[in-house]
Amino acid sequence: MQALADEKVFKCPIHSFIRVTDKLIWELIEAPEFQRLRRIKQLGGTHIVYPTAEHSRFSHSLGVYFIARRMIDVLNKQGTRFTDSERMLILCAALLHDLGHGPFSHSFETVLNIDHEDFTRRILLEHTQINHLLEGYQTGFSQEVSDVIAKKHPNRLIVSLISSEIDADRLDYLLRDSYFTGTPYGEIDLERILRTMRVVNGKIAFKHSGMHAIEDYLFSRYQMYWQVYLHDCSLSFNFLIQSLLTRVKKLLTDGYAFNCDMRLFHELFATTDININTYLRFDDGVITTFAGFFLEESDATLRDLASKFLNRGLLKEFDYEPQENSPQLYEQLASAMEMANIDTVSYLFNFNHEQSTYDHYGLDCESIDILTADGISREISTVSNIIQGIVNAPKKKSTIFLALDHVKASANKEQLEKALEALIGRSVHV
Amino acid sequence: MQALADEKVFKCPIHSFIRVTDKLIWELIEAPEFQRLRRIKQLGGTHIVYPTAEHSRFSHSLGVYFIARRMIDVLNKQGTRFTDSERMLILCAALLHDLGHGPFSHSFETVLNIDHEDFTRRILLEHTQINHLLEGYQTGFSQEVSDVIAKKHPNRLIVSLISSEIDADRLDYLLRDSYFTGTPYGEIDLERILRTMRVVNGKIAFKHSGMHAIEDYLFSRYQMYWQVYLHDCSLSFNFLIQSLLTRVKKLLTDGYAFNCDMRLFHELFATTDININTYLRFDDGVITTFAGFFLEESDATLRDLASKFLNRGLLKEFDYEPQENSPQLYEQLASAMEMANIDTVSYLFNFNHEQSTYDHYGLDCESIDILTADGISREISTVSNIIQGIVNAPKKKSTIFLALDHVKASANKEQLEKALEALIGRSVHV
Amino acid sequence: MQALADEKVFKCPIHSFIRVTDKLIWELIEAPEFQRLRRIKQLGGTHIVYPTAEHSRFSHSLGVYFIARRMIDVLNKQGTRFTDSERMLILCAALLHDLGHGPFSHSFETVLNIDHEDFTRRILLEHTQINHLLEGYQTGFSQEVSDVIAKKHPNRLIVSLISSEIDADRLDYLLRDSYFTGTPYGEIDLERILRTMRVVNGKIAFKHSGMHAIEDYLFSRYQMYWQVYLHDCSLSFNFLIQSLLTRVKKLLTDGYAFNCDMRLFHELFATTDININTYLRFDDGVITTFAGFFLEESDATLRDLASKFLNRGLLKEFDYEPQENSPQLYEQLASAMEMANIDTVSYLFNFNHEQSTYDHYGLDCESIDILTADGISREISTVSNIIQGIVNAPKKKSTIFLALDHVKASANKEQLEKALEALIGRSVHV
Amino acid sequence: MQALADEKVFKCPIHSFIRVTDKLIWELIEAPEFQRLRRIKQLGGTHIVYPTAEHSRFSHSLGVYFIARRMIDVLNKQGTRFTDSERMLILCAALLHDLGHGPFSHSFETVLNIDHEDFTRRILLEHTQINHLLEGYQTGFSQEVSDVIAKKHPNRLIVSLISSEIDADRLDYLLRDSYFTGTPYGEIDLERILRTMRVVNGKIAFKHSGMHAIEDYLFSRYQMYWQVYLHDCSLSFNFLIQSLLTRVKKLLTDGYAFNCDMRLFHELFATTDININTYLRFDDGVITTFAGFFLEESDATLRDLASKFLNRGLLKEFDYEPQENSPQLYEQLASAMEMANIDTVSYLFNFNHEQSTYDHYGLDCESIDILTADGISREISTVSNIIQGIVNAPKKKSTIFLALDHVKASANKEQLEKALEALIGRSVHV
Repeated sequence: MQALADEKVFKCPIHSFIRVTDKLIWELIEAPEFQRLRRIKQLGGTHIVYPTAEHSRFSHSLGVYFIARRMIDVLNKQGTRFTDSERMLILCAALLHDLGHGPFSHSFETVLNIDHEDFTRRILLEHTQINHLLEGYQTGFSQEVSDVIAKKHPNRLIVSLISSEIDADRLDYLLRDSYFTGTPYGEIDLERILRTMRVVNGKIAFKHSGMHAIEDYLFSRYQMYWQVYLHDCSLSFNFLIQSLLTRVKKLLTDGYAFNCDMRLFHELFATTDININTYLRFDDGVITTFAGFFLEESDATLRDLASKFLNRGLLKEFDYEPQENSPQLYEQLASAMEMANIDTVSYLFNFNHEQSTYDHYGLDCESIDILTADGISREISTVSNIIQGIVNAPKKKSTIFLALDHVKASANKEQLEKALEALIGRSVHV
Repeated sequence: MQALADEKVFKCPIHSFIRVTDKLIWELIEAPEFQRLRRIKQLGGTHIVYPTAEHSRFSHSLGVYFIARRMIDVLNKQGTRFTDSERMLILCAALLHDLGHGPFSHSFETVLNIDHEDFTRRILLEHTQINHLLEGYQTGFSQEVSDVIAKKHPNRLIVSLISSEIDADRLDYLLRDSYFTGTPYGEIDLERILRTMRVVNGKIAFKHSGMHAIEDYLFSRYQMYWQVYLHDCSLSFNFLIQSLLTRVKKLLTDGYAFNCDMRLFHELFATTDININTYLRFDDGVITTFAGFFLEESDATLRDLASKFLNRGLLKEFDYEPQENSPQLYEQLASAMEMANIDTVSYLFNFNHEQSTYDHYGLDCESIDILTADGISREISTVSNIIQGIVNAPKKKSTIFLALDHVKASANKEQLEKALEALIGRSVHV
Repeated sequence: MQALADEKVFKCPIHSFIRVTDKLIWELIEAPEFQRLRRIKQLGGTHIVYPTAEHSRFSHSLGVYFIARRMIDVLNKQGTRFTDSERMLILCAALLHDLGHGPFSHSFETVLNIDHEDFTRRILLEHTQINHLLEGYQTGFSQEVSDVIAKKHPNRLIVSLISSEIDADRLDYLLRDSYFTGTPYGEIDLERILRTMRVVNGKIAFKHSGMHAIEDYLFSRYQMYWQVYLHDCSLSFNFLIQSLLTRVKKLLTDGYAFNCDMRLFHELFATTDININTYLRFDDGVITTFAGFFLEESDATLRDLASKFLNRGLLKEFDYEPQENSPQLYEQLASAMEMANIDTVSYLFNFNHEQSTYDHYGLDCESIDILTADGISREISTVSNIIQGIVNAPKKKSTIFLALDHVKASANKEQLEKALEALIGRSVHV
Repeated sequence: MQALADEKVFKCPIHSFIRVTDKLIWELIEAPEFQRLRRIKQLGGTHIVYPTAEHSRFSHSLGVYFIARRMIDVLNKQGTRFTDSERMLILCAALLHDLGHGPFSHSFETVLNIDHEDFTRRILLEHTQINHLLEGYQTGFSQEVSDVIAKKHPNRLIVSLISSEIDADRLDYLLRDSYFTGTPYGEIDLERILRTMRVVNGKIAFKHSGMHAIEDYLFSRYQMYWQVYLHDCSLSFNFLIQSLLTRVKKLLTDGYAFNCDMRLFHELFATTDININTYLRFDDGVITTFAGFFLEESDATLRDLASKFLNRGLLKEFDYEPQENSPQLYEQLASAMEMANIDTVSYLFNFNHEQSTYDHYGLDCESIDILTADGISREISTVSNIIQGIVNAPKKKSTIFLALDHVKASANKEQLEKALEALIGRSVHV
C-alpha cells in the first residue's frame, strides 16, 4: 500500500478535516467518475423546500470514507486488526458506494427502470478509470469492492461497516443533511457511537454506555425521514421530475421531432443497451440544461413540465386517511381528470407509504446489538425500553399530489373538486 | 408599568441577548434574594461527573424569563392579548420561580424536611426586597406571583406557561444543561416550538407542523434525565451530601461541641422555626466552607464525610434487577454493615426509581396538545405514533450506593461482599 | 402594500427562519429570473478546494433580504422611520441585487467583456416577470430598485444599507461562506452589529459599544479573502474556466464546426447584441453540460480544457516576489512556452493583486463610522487603534499559474523550467 | 509509567472528550489540592457582567492538559520524540500550572501581597498529596514540574508548550472563556494551529499554511482582553473585592473584635508566615460565606463593602483621556472625597493600562515564529502584514472607579462632581 508523499486534506464543516494518506484513495477521488459526483446533489430536489440543501454526493462520499476510517481506528484499538488489504477494501467501498447514482436519483431510476446499484457495480467493473485504479492496486480488487457494496462479500463485518442499520453511510448523511438543511434533528453523537463500537463474535455491537447515543441516532433518523426526506415539497418535486422524464421518454419513443439535439438522451431513454460512458454523462446540470431547451419545444405538456421543474411550479399535496374505498375513489378522480383532458400520467400521483423507525426484522440490514454487562450482545429493542416502545409503531402517510393550476383552469373544475373531496374526506376550494 | 430609560442586556450563550426593558424586572434582578441565586448551582453536584456543569440558578432564571417573554410575544401576535399586569405577572413568575432553592437542593430539602416551594412563597410574601418591589408595583401582586408559581392562580393559561409538561422552565433548562454539560442530547428546536404555540379554548396547543419538534423535546428530556440528572455519579454525590447534612443535623441535635462556630446552622438544622433571612444565607459556598471546617472536628464520621464531599470520595454504585426478595436481601446487607460497625445512615443507600418519558395522566402537569388540521386540540399520544409507543414504557433503575472504602477496610469484608452479591445477583471483588 | 394571507418561511442554517410576509417579495422569489439563482453557485468554483462550498446565489439573496429586514426593524426602533414604499425599496434591492450574475461570474464576465451589474439592471427594467411585478407594485419602481443597486439613488441611507463597507450583502456572505466552507474565520457578531446601528445625520454609524464587533468584521473579511476567495485553487480554477470560455469564443468566431448544437452559445459568444432571455438561460449546469459535449469535439485544446474543467485538472501555482525585471522574465517564460507549442492564452496566467483590509478612501464605498460618547460620528480608523494599524497595510500576491502537464510533456522541458525558475527565483522540478 | 486499567474520560463542551490514560494523571486529578480548583472560578468576578462565566479553574486545567497532550501527539508525528518522563513532565506541568491560585485571584494577591506562582511552587514542593504523587513517580520530579511552570527548566521546548505567546494555557482559556461567556470573539482554529506546529532548532514554529490561524488567534486574544477580561464591570468588581479584603486585613491588623470566628483569616491576613494548608482552605465559597457574616459586623464600611460585593453594588466607571495634569486632578478628587468623609482606600480607584495585542519584545514570553517556504523560522510580524500593522499599536485605558452612592449621599456632592468633571473632562450628573 503506497502512501502519499504529502497527506491531502479536505476541509469539512461536519468532520473538521478529512485526511487522505493513501495514494490509491487520492487517485480514486481524482478520477472523472468520482469527480462527477460533485455535479449530483445528495438530496435531489430537497433544496426546493430547504434552500440550502445543495450539497453533493461528492462531499458525502468523502464523509463516509472519513467515518469508515475512524471505525477502523476504533476497532483496531479494541483489538480487531484488519490487514492492509481489508483496510483498503473498507475505505474504497465507503468512498465509492454512491458512484452509480444518477441525477435526481429516485425519479431517474423509476422512469428509466434502472437501479443505481447496478451502475455502481458497472462503474467498478467495466472499463473505467476507477476500475483501472482498483485493479492496479490488486487484481480482482474491483470485484471485492463491488461485493462489499452489494452486501455479497463473505466478510460480514466489513459489509456491516458499509451497510447496516447503523453504518458509515447513514452516520454521515444524517449529520450532513442536518447541517445543510439547517434542521437540528439529525445531530447525532458520532463520537460516542464510535467510541462504544466493539466486535463481538464477528459482529458489531455497542457498549451499554453507548446505548443512549444509539437511541438518539434512531430518533434522529426518524425525524430526518419525516421532516426532510419525506417532506411534501420534496415528494412533490420528485413527482414533477418523474413526470418530466416520463414525458421525454414517451416523446423519444414516439419519434417526436425535438428542436434541440437529443442524441445524448436517446441512448438512455429509448434503447435498452446503455453504455456506461453515456450514463456517466448524466448529472443534475444536464437535466436542468435540457429542461431549458424543452421550454422552446412544441409539445405543450413538455413545455409545461419543464417550466414547472425550473421555476418551482409544484404539484399540490392533499393528505388523506385511507379508507376501504380509497382505491376506487382515486380511480374516479383519475377518470374525472382524464375526461377533463388533464394528463394523469404527468399531473396526478398517489403516495402511500409506511415506515418503521427501526425494524430489526428487516431482510436487508442487520439489527443493532447492545453489549450488556454480562458480555452478551442483545438486539437493542430487548434492552432499551424506548426502542421497544417504537419498534412496532410504523408511521404512515397517504397523500395525493396534483397540478392544481390545471384543475383551476378546467371547465370541469367543480366536478374535479368533488372527486378530490370524496377521496380526501374534506372540502377544498381550489 | 415603568420602562427603563436604557434597556439592559445580558449576554447569554443560549439565547444570545436577554433584554430587560421593565424597571420592575431589573430591580427584582438586582435584589439580594435574586443575586443569591448566583451562588447556587443549577445542577447541584452534577459537576462531579460533568465538570463544566457549573452554571447557576441565576442565569437559568434569566433564561426562563426570556422564554416567557418570547411566549408572550408569540401569543400576542396570534391574537391572545395579555393586559400589562398579566404580562408582568408571567414575567415575574418566570423570573422568580426558583427563588426558594437551597444549596444542593434535593439533599438539603430531604435532610431538613422542607420544600423549596414553601420558601419561594415565603420570599415572595414575607419581609424581603422582592416582596417590597412586587407590592410597590401593585398591591397584592406578590400573592398573585406566588399563586402562579404554586399553580393555584385561576388563570390556567398563565400557570401553564410557567408549569406544564412543556413550559418556559423546562425549555430553558434542557437547552442550558445540555450546553453546560456538553452533552448534545438536550438540544431542542426552541424556535419551532415557540412559533407553533397557539391558544385553543384557553389552553396551549401546538400546531401540527410543530409536532415533530415536540416529539424531539420529549425525547431530549428522556435523554437528559438518564444521562445527566440520574447519572450514577450525580446520585452518588447527592447521597454523600445527604449523609453529610444528616450527620451535621444529628450532631447539632445531640449537642455535640463543634470547634467551629455553628450559630448559622443551628437555626436551620436544630429548630423548627426557620427565619427567612437565615434561610437566605445558605448557598453552595456556605456548605463547602463549613465542610472545610468539619475536616478538623473530632467526630470521625463527620470528618470522613466532609473529606469525601470536598474531594470526590464517591459512594460506589451497584445496579441490580429487583426481585421479590430484594427488600429482605437489602436488609441483610444493611445488618451486615451495621454489625461491621459501618454507619448505614451515612454509607448505604438504595435507589429505586421509575420514570415515564411522558405521562399525560400525571396529576401535576397538563398534557401536551396538538392542534390538528380540523381545528381540534388532541393530546399528543393520540396523534403521534412515536409518542404513543413510548407513553407506556417507563424506565426503571435500582441501584445500591455504598462506601466501598469502609467495606474494604472491614474485618468482615468477605461477609459484606457476599451480602452485596446476594442482592445484586453477581460476583464482586471490592 | 399587500400582505400574504399566510406568512412564508424558509429554513436557513445561518438565520434560523427567513420569513416573508409581503406578497410582492414572495412573488419576486417565485419569478423564473430569481429561481434561476438556484442554479448559480455563490462562490463559482471554490468547491474545487472547499468541497462543501456548493451554496447558491438563491439562498444568499434570501439572506441579504433577511438582514435588510432586520436593519429596517433596528433603525425603525431607533426612530428612523421608513415609508412603506421605502421599506419595500430596501427589501427589493436587497433581494434582487445579484440577479444579473452569470455562471462562474468573474471568468464569464471577463471573457464576454460584460458586467453583471448591467444585466441586473436589464433584468429589472426590460420585459421580465421581475419587471412586471415591480411595476405592478408602483409605476417606476423597477427604476428605483435599479438605482439603489447601482448606488445612484438620491436616498444615500438606503443605498448604504445595500452597498457600503458594511452592508447587508457583505454581512450575509461572510457568515454564509464561512458556514458552507467550514472555515471558522468568517463568523461575525451580526447581533451586536445590528444592535448598535444608528443613523447620524442621514448616515449609518455604529455605537461605540459595537466597535469591537466591527473590528472583528473587518478582520473576518480579511481572513475570508485570503483563505477562501483568493485561495490558489480557486484562482487556478477560475483561470481554467476563463481559458475554456475563451477557447469556445475563439472557435465560434473562427467558424469552427462544432459537433454539438451551439445555437445557445452563439448569441452570447459571437454577437454583440445579447437578448436578456438568452442571457438568463445561462447557469452553472449549462457550462458543465456543454463541457461534457466538448469532450467529444475535434479541437484538442477545447477537449483538454473541458476535461481539466470537469475533472479538476488544475493549473499549478508558483508564488513569486515581484522584482523590477519580473515583467521581462514573464515575457521570456511566455515566449519559451509559445516556442514549445504551448498555448499561453489557455495555459499561462500571471496574477498580481494588492488588497487592503479596509480602505476608507475607496471611491465606491462609504467609510465605516463610529458614534463616540460625545455624539459625533468618526471614521473608525481614527478611533480604533487596531484598525489604524492595519488601514495602511495592504497585502500583496504575485503568482504564476500554468499547465504543468504540458510543460512536463514538452521536449523543451528543461528550458521551460529555467525560464520559470528565473521568474520565481527558486528551483523547481516539474 | 503506569497506565490505567480503564481509560477515564471527562466530557467537555470545548474538547468533546478529555481522556486520561496515565495512572499518575488520574491520581493528581483526584488529589484534594486539585479538586479545590473546582471551587475557584476561572474568571473571578466576570460572571457579574457575563452571567454564565461561572466555569472553574478545574475544568480549565483539564483542558490545558488535553491540549498539551495533543501537542505531544502532533510533535511526535512530526519526528520530535519525547521520552516517557518528558511526556509526563509536560502533562503534569500543564495540568498543575494553576494550582496556586486563590479565590478572585488578582485582588486576593494584591491585598495579601503574594504571588500565586509562589503558592503553585509550594503546593508542588511542600508536604501535599500532589508532592507525594509526583515524588512517587520519580524522585525530584516535583522540582522538575515546578521548574517548567516557573519557566526555569533547561528544556526550553517543554517550557514553551506551557508558557509562551501561544501555549496550551492560552489556547484553552480563549476557547473556554469564549464558550462560557457566550462572546463569539474567542473562537480560534485550534485544529489548524496544532496541525501546523513544528519544532525548528529546538523551538516551536508554525508552518506558513497556519499563519492565518495565528493571526486570528492574536486578534481573538485582543478581543477577549478588551471585551471580557478588561470589561469595566469586571474591573469594578475586582476593585470591590480588593476594597473588601483590604478592609478585612486592616480590621484584623487593628485588632477589631469580629463577631464571627475569624481564625481562618487571621493567619493569611495578619501574619507573614502562611501555612500551605491554610492557604489551600481559601476558595470562592469562603470569601462569599464570610462576606455573609460581615453583613452583621458593626464596622459600617465592612458591612457596606460586603453588601456591595454580595449584591452587585458596583463602583461606577468614568473613562478619561489622560492629560499632563491628570495626576494632580486625581489627587484633588481624592482629597475632596476624603474631606467629604468618603474612604478613598475603599471607594476610589484609578485604572491606567496599556496593552499590546502582540509584543515580541516581551521579556517573559517567546515570540511566535512562522516557518517560511525556505525552511527558515521568522518572527511573525516580519511575515504577516496585518500583524506588522498592529504590533506597534498598543491600546490604552484610563478609568476612574468610585462609589457613586456615597458621592450622591454626600453633603459635598456638588464639589465632588466638579472635581470628577475636572479630571474626566466632561460634565456628569451623579
